Amino acid sequence: MTDVSRQAANQMWGGRFASGPDAIMEAINASIDFDRRLARQDIEGSRAHAAMLAAQGILTDNDADAIREGLLTVLSEIEGGRFEFSAALEDIHMNVEARLRQLIGEPAGRLHTARSRNDQVATDFRLWVREQCDAAMDGLAALQGALLAQAEAGADWVMPGFTHLQTAQPVTWGHHMLAYVEMLGRDIGRFRDARARMNECPLGAAALAGTSFPIDRHATAAALGFDRPMANSLDAVSDRDFALEFLAASSITSMHLSRLAEELVIWSSAQFRFVTLSDRFSTGSSIMPQKKNPDAAELIRAKIGRVVGANIALLTVMKGLPLAYSKDMQEDKEQVFDAADTLMLALAAMTGMVGDMRANVSALEAAASSGFSTATDLADWLVRVLDLPFREAHHVTGSLVAMAEARGCDLPDLSVEDMQSVHPGITGDVFDVLGVHNSVASRVSFGGTAPDQVRARISDWKERIG
Amino acid sequence: MTDVSRQAANQMWGGRFASGPDAIMEAINASIDFDRRLARQDIEGSRAHAAMLAAQGILTDNDADAIREGLLTVLSEIEGGRFEFSAALEDIHMNVEARLRQLIGEPAGRLHTARSRNDQVATDFRLWVREQCDAAMDGLAALQGALLAQAEAGADWVMPGFTHLQTAQPVTWGHHMLAYVEMLGRDIGRFRDARARMNECPLGAAALAGTSFPIDRHATAAALGFDRPMANSLDAVSDRDFALEFLAASSITSMHLSRLAEELVIWSSAQFRFVTLSDRFSTGSSIMPQKKNPDAAELIRAKIGRVVGANIALLTVMKGLPLAYSKDMQEDKEQVFDAADTLMLALAAMTGMVGDMRANVSALEAAASSGFSTATDLADWLVRVLDLPFREAHHVTGSLVAMAEARGCDLPDLSVEDMQSVHPGITGDVFDVLGVHNSVASRVSFGGTAPDQVRARISDWKERIG
Amino acid sequence: MTDVSRQAANQMWGGRFASGPDAIMEAINASIDFDRRLARQDIEGSRAHAAMLAAQGILTDNDADAIREGLLTVLSEIEGGRFEFSAALEDIHMNVEARLRQLIGEPAGRLHTARSRNDQVATDFRLWVREQCDAAMDGLAALQGALLAQAEAGADWVMPGFTHLQTAQPVTWGHHMLAYVEMLGRDIGRFRDARARMNECPLGAAALAGTSFPIDRHATAAALGFDRPMANSLDAVSDRDFALEFLAASSITSMHLSRLAEELVIWSSAQFRFVTLSDRFSTGSSIMPQKKNPDAAELIRAKIGRVVGANIALLTVMKGLPLAYSKDMQEDKEQVFDAADTLMLALAAMTGMVGDMRANVSALEAAASSGFSTATDLADWLVRVLDLPFREAHHVTGSLVAMAEARGCDLPDLSVEDMQSVHPGITGDVFDVLGVHNSVASRVSFGGTAPDQVRARISDWKERIG
Amino acid sequence: MTDVSRQAANQMWGGRFASGPDAIMEAINASIDFDRRLARQDIEGSRAHAAMLAAQGILTDNDADAIREGLLTVLSEIEGGRFEFSAALEDIHMNVEARLRQLIGEPAGRLHTARSRNDQVATDFRLWVREQCDAAMDGLAALQGALLAQAEAGADWVMPGFTHLQTAQPVTWGHHMLAYVEMLGRDIGRFRDARARMNECPLGAAALAGTSFPIDRHATAAALGFDRPMANSLDAVSDRDFALEFLAASSITSMHLSRLAEELVIWSSAQFRFVTLSDRFSTGSSIMPQKKNPDAAELIRAKIGRVVGANIALLTVMKGLPLAYSKDMQEDKEQVFDAADTLMLALAAMTGMVGDMRANVSALEAAASSGFSTATDLADWLVRVLDLPFREAHHVTGSLVAMAEARGCDLPDLSVEDMQSVHPGITGDVFDVLGVHNSVASRVSFGGTAPDQVRARISDWKERIG
Repeated sequence: MTDVSRQAANQMWGGRFASGPDAIMEAINASIDFDRRLARQDIEGSRAHAAMLAAQGILTDNDADAIREGLLTVLSEIEGGRFEFSAALEDIHMNVEARLRQLIGEPAGRLHTARSRNDQVATDFRLWVREQCDAAMDGLAALQGALLAQAEAGADWVMPGFTHLQTAQPVTWGHHMLAYVEMLGRDIGRFRDARARMNECPLGAAALAGTSFPIDRHATAAALGFDRPMANSLDAVSDRDFALEFLAASSITSMHLSRLAEELVIWSSAQFRFVTLSDRFSTGSSIMPQKKNPDAAELIRAKIGRVVGANIALLTVMKGLPLAYSKDMQEDKEQVFDAADTLMLALAAMTGMVGDMRANVSALEAAASSGFSTATDLADWLVRVLDLPFREAHHVTGSLVAMAEARGCDLPDLSVEDMQSVHPGITGDVFDVLGVHNSVASRVSFGGTAPDQVRARISDWKERIG
Repeated sequence: MTDVSRQAANQMWGGRFASGPDAIMEAINASIDFDRRLARQDIEGSRAHAAMLAAQGILTDNDADAIREGLLTVLSEIEGGRFEFSAALEDIHMNVEARLRQLIGEPAGRLHTARSRNDQVATDFRLWVREQCDAAMDGLAALQGALLAQAEAGADWVMPGFTHLQTAQPVTWGHHMLAYVEMLGRDIGRFRDARARMNECPLGAAALAGTSFPIDRHATAAALGFDRPMANSLDAVSDRDFALEFLAASSITSMHLSRLAEELVIWSSAQFRFVTLSDRFSTGSSIMPQKKNPDAAELIRAKIGRVVGANIALLTVMKGLPLAYSKDMQEDKEQVFDAADTLMLALAAMTGMVGDMRANVSALEAAASSGFSTATDLADWLVRVLDLPFREAHHVTGSLVAMAEARGCDLPDLSVEDMQSVHPGITGDVFDVLGVHNSVASRVSFGGTAPDQVRARISDWKERIG
Repeated sequence: MTDVSRQAANQMWGGRFASGPDAIMEAINASIDFDRRLARQDIEGSRAHAAMLAAQGILTDNDADAIREGLLTVLSEIEGGRFEFSAALEDIHMNVEARLRQLIGEPAGRLHTARSRNDQVATDFRLWVREQCDAAMDGLAALQGALLAQAEAGADWVMPGFTHLQTAQPVTWGHHMLAYVEMLGRDIGRFRDARARMNECPLGAAALAGTSFPIDRHATAAALGFDRPMANSLDAVSDRDFALEFLAASSITSMHLSRLAEELVIWSSAQFRFVTLSDRFSTGSSIMPQKKNPDAAELIRAKIGRVVGANIALLTVMKGLPLAYSKDMQEDKEQVFDAADTLMLALAAMTGMVGDMRANVSALEAAASSGFSTATDLADWLVRVLDLPFREAHHVTGSLVAMAEARGCDLPDLSVEDMQSVHPGITGDVFDVLGVHNSVASRVSFGGTAPDQVRARISDWKERIG
Repeated sequence: MTDVSRQAANQMWGGRFASGPDAIMEAINASIDFDRRLARQDIEGSRAHAAMLAAQGILTDNDADAIREGLLTVLSEIEGGRFEFSAALEDIHMNVEARLRQLIGEPAGRLHTARSRNDQVATDFRLWVREQCDAAMDGLAALQGALLAQAEAGADWVMPGFTHLQTAQPVTWGHHMLAYVEMLGRDIGRFRDARARMNECPLGAAALAGTSFPIDRHATAAALGFDRPMANSLDAVSDRDFALEFLAASSITSMHLSRLAEELVIWSSAQFRFVTLSDRFSTGSSIMPQKKNPDAAELIRAKIGRVVGANIALLTVMKGLPLAYSKDMQEDKEQVFDAADTLMLALAAMTGMVGDMRANVSALEAAASSGFSTATDLADWLVRVLDLPFREAHHVTGSLVAMAEARGCDLPDLSVEDMQSVHPGITGDVFDVLGVHNSVASRVSFGGTAPDQVRARISDWKERIG
């Protein structure tokens, strides 16, 4: 929200926009309150453009030098907080150029040769989003690191594996942590692909049709770290699919974070007590000092809302817009800014929280050992050793679980004789698979929960991350 | 977005949150950067609460007076821009209370008796959203006024009525304007219903269970203009459906605005030239002075994105949250703030734009008169006068249109003889219905496009609005 | 999805739409595969229209009688499954009319006098959505009934009241159930308001401009149970805000259902064991007979996805559509059909599940009694009896909780002397507030969790529901 | 929607679910009405699994052969429409296995060894979505082909380039077509990347923990065309990001299609007349034979609604789900099925429509030549030839446009003397840049609108597509 509208909104309706149409138009039209975040990118783009114009003989070297030097001054003023932004100048491009003119005079008027605000803002914004892809990849890798550390510590800690939030089979803590490492790995891939796809330079598309000046678009593209110039000038100024792809990747990552956050909230409850979160990522109560509210986890869980909201917002804006540039597209930036800030903050908070959290190993194991969690192991033993068809093995296992339940005990507490009364082929060897440690150790299929598998997968990831 | 995250986002990842977990937690946890907008509501609520506590003998009158007076001082400091907000104090409630303690000392500590931040924030936010319902109704009524003025001016101006953006039948300008008046009338109804439904007071629900103090919830409810206290304390602190209903109503209104905005953009094109927008709501080009870009219309068209985005965001946040309060719900405010600001701005801009715009009456009529737009009138005449079944009348009309098209003329240019060659019963009276003015004048069914109907409906609306 | 596209989708791309453009156009254009659900409403509307045409002398009584009788025959054929729908006839309107012509011949061609498919479909769909509002209100009332029965049974069962899924204060089971009764009560209000607002009749708007026939729109409106005809013909055929308001109300209801469903899933876990769901709404495992998966609860939790998806879908469709009818609007029906079906199914399933579920009263009370859940009661006692300022009372309580935690006991296990060592004013009376039953009994503020309050609120609701 | 719920929905509420809880549970729980679309994939997966079990000695070769042969029979029954699906058997997996047991007896019970429905459905659905990626890429390439053909035909046809739907500069038809070719090219890239990322095999993850059977996951992965097995069994059964990525890519593609569709609707209006759509993708009016409604374009424009709706729906479903499998995830399929069908249909319809449409070359050129569309060319000439600073050149141009406007002519109609009165340096050479053909020919910057550039870019694309 702009300062103007914020101020307006703080008043009653009567006072809103009291100054009439001009104030309303400025409030809805000016973008400087948010696009000032593109200052650095705007100046980088202009410097590259000026250098190219000089190399092509469109500007004199003197003018180009003055422009490039002056722009650095403007940048240092902005970064130093000494720049006065003007809403009357509407946007970051005009603010920068106006200041440049004050600093260097007439040559400033030559900078805008062979470009327009349409390709300029497309370039600035693309540079900004490209940086956010890098930041997202870094943030995801940091969180992977925290999860890998947890996985390594607890490669053989046993915990319940849930389906429907009901205990299904024992798994290892390390295995559970690695599930998220995999998800985040794909998230990184999405940002990497998005970055590669958006890494084409709009600069030189001018207003929409290209230009008759003998510019060198490959040069500016290279100077700004792009792989190539965009191949169609209309497309260059009118599409925002690169921003949408960033938001889509962010939405999926936020979904993954919301799942882990939900688990942390549930695991922190008095009923589960699977983990203890650190004080730094919890809040207490002045009255109940033992109470530790998982605020950070809840906020991360909630943050998917604003990321998905931003995604929808921009898709809705872009729906049905004819080519080329329409002012509707000015709505792209705030959504992406907010989603990117939200994502980076959520990643940082989750990384800190995962790094700090302590698993309650005994509570995990106790929970894993209850609820006939090794019934599947028993059934598999019947198939593997006695060659029962799978469906029949299930039937035998069901009878044994029912017997144990009736006696108020778990499967390992039944005797061989009890078991043989249900199926005579069962031998004492079966007890090898009924303990939770044996259960997890046995699941050695590739990607299974066995500690050896977990350690092998950790090792793969460490190699991949380097 | 908080200043902290904004600042962070302006840096590279490496620098983000460099100060570690504490900075991250503050950035994700503190709400003072946005909930300061609830200052006035917070203080109103506290003043009502203090008065009630005194009336019930829970506070002394002296303490209550000191609190109520002190809170007014705090409010004046905030509204005067002299208040220093502290992120360490997290939210608006703690900021206000801390300042109150500085001003009046120990009695400040008695204000929080029999309440908690959970019912306090629910009350503050409800008061805020209630005001926005009023503001939305005012804004919608203002836009209705501008549309009614246009309708009155052009109750009998003829323009094309489109289906599929193809000319279908002539309609009147006034009729078209009134279509939006109707839509906005229902929009007002939605905000009115939402306001009535949300007008129950959460205060006194305390943390979640109510309180053992002998409070009078009906008194605080009345003092704050609520119809009654909410009837369940868990519900009072844990639901946000009032905010969602506001967002839903705002989404539908935004949809209506997007449609009118789209029409203004299309009508402003060189190809249509149906309307001329005022300079105040357009932007020009330094190079093409004749060019008048409908920026405000485009921005209004786009604003539906952020309103719908906010709606989705909060629905996503609330999905699957167990009772009662969860920190996730802190995400409610920024979405509603932004959507409300957006809606009020869009309404104000549309009102200004509609008030200023000039219809190009001759262009409208010329467009209405082409494209065989009275073919339906001809068919209806065949049914009405010659008693042809509707489907057969259609067939005859089709043949006549085909004949006219083949000759490069329109229907009124055919002779009676031409027409009789297709159907012998046709007489010269038919020409009465083939002119666009006759066409619209004939559509006198209730709510039809005839100027008399239009004027009658305008009159209904004026009476309703008062 | 149409049969055509479903079939197409079952093939590989190569085979898709192999029959060329005509097949593609039919697949994308025809609506009969879904709008056949409007058959009854379509026929009701046509019968009312025919009766009015006769009353106004536009049709002969004989023709009108034949039409009205013939339409009943068509309806009985459709409801009896004996009707052959034709995709070549595109939609339900043409299918019905074509069959009518077969049945009664020429008069069928007179039915369409003074109307068009635009006002016809708007009327049909509005009738359909209006019925769904009624169905939703019935379904919500049924669920309220099931919750009230639970509340009545357990008005004084004690359970933990959670914030952040951490035990905060004890509440009563009845109180928790009533929280949802309140939410659903507002949901009913939303559907009631939506129904009232949409209850205006589009019929007679014709294509978009009204008609020159002397129709009586008030008569058809009344015959179809509408409060009045819509006042603007363009609006009548081009807006779909009634459908959007239904979807918005459904979205909020789905959100409420998702919260209750989430609680049921968590409460059913082995770690919580707060409730036991019936076998009818759970699924088991052939191998783990003790396992009871809360499938219905999970599916209800998930159903919010498709309802919100439908809401967004239709908002997106309507964004930026110029008046009056555009074919885009054909996309309205499937979204609303699916959302309505989903909502009714979710309500029915939740009603059955809530009716069947059994609370584990002892587990609830044990959970409520742990975790220093009455610390707030202690603090309130200090304020009320010793007149300590609230913030100081909090401090004293914190010290006592810390003392109890250090000793591994709960608050009631401390001696008076222990307590006096922290604050000398404490007396033995304090123990009255430290038990969970006393705690809940004390919260007698209006809407509080005290059993008496719960019973009073149940009584209010029963009176309201009648 | 299931048949059961469809049927239910066709009745009044009173009749809905009259048969009680069991009917409700079946309606909400069974998936066979939609997951039957996975039949082929399910059988492929089972055949690969059986072959691997035999190769690993877990099944006998005889059993495996019987299973694999029997599955082919089942598949042929399903594809031949001779299979009776049973809702009591819940899903496609149980339906297939039950039929297999009828066909081959006891060995059927051995097929499910070392797998569960969790990894089975994850595999089936992944195979299905993978095929849709291929179909989307094919469909996009087909549409690119149609656009390239249009571009080739009209590489030098001149049309207005719009910003804000106002004429800005002339561009070429071919250039405009190529803008969409570029967008679709990135769309293809997104599906390609999504396909590559999802191409890992979940099979062998079993319920969630892996298995103790000595299976060879690399073998089944390879047999099913996957690049490798998924590396974590929990992740394999609990994530659906591959479906979300497909939906995200589909949403962006739908956005692109909605923009082109909007242009076609506007261009088909009587006011623009830029294109004529073929009868095959339009619908007429029985009464206005000249009327050609762009129904297909409108429907494609609208289809973004359901694709975005599906995207949001699945994101909402997945938000906050704890690992591993939850029944909520059953909601994944219908959303993806509908979105994929919608996307493929929209691509096919757009391809047909673009292939058929005829540009009205003279109308395009006339529109391009009005509105001072070469003002930018004039300004650029002043910079290039007279070395004016850009901002000053703009000022001079503005004065000349104002002069022309005052005289009711366009720029080329001014004399050299007129021009020199504003800036004395202007010479007759300036007229070279004032014609629209010269204008577009001059924009030879890479990716510019010059016919030579357009032809070069077409050539690039043809090479790339092969």
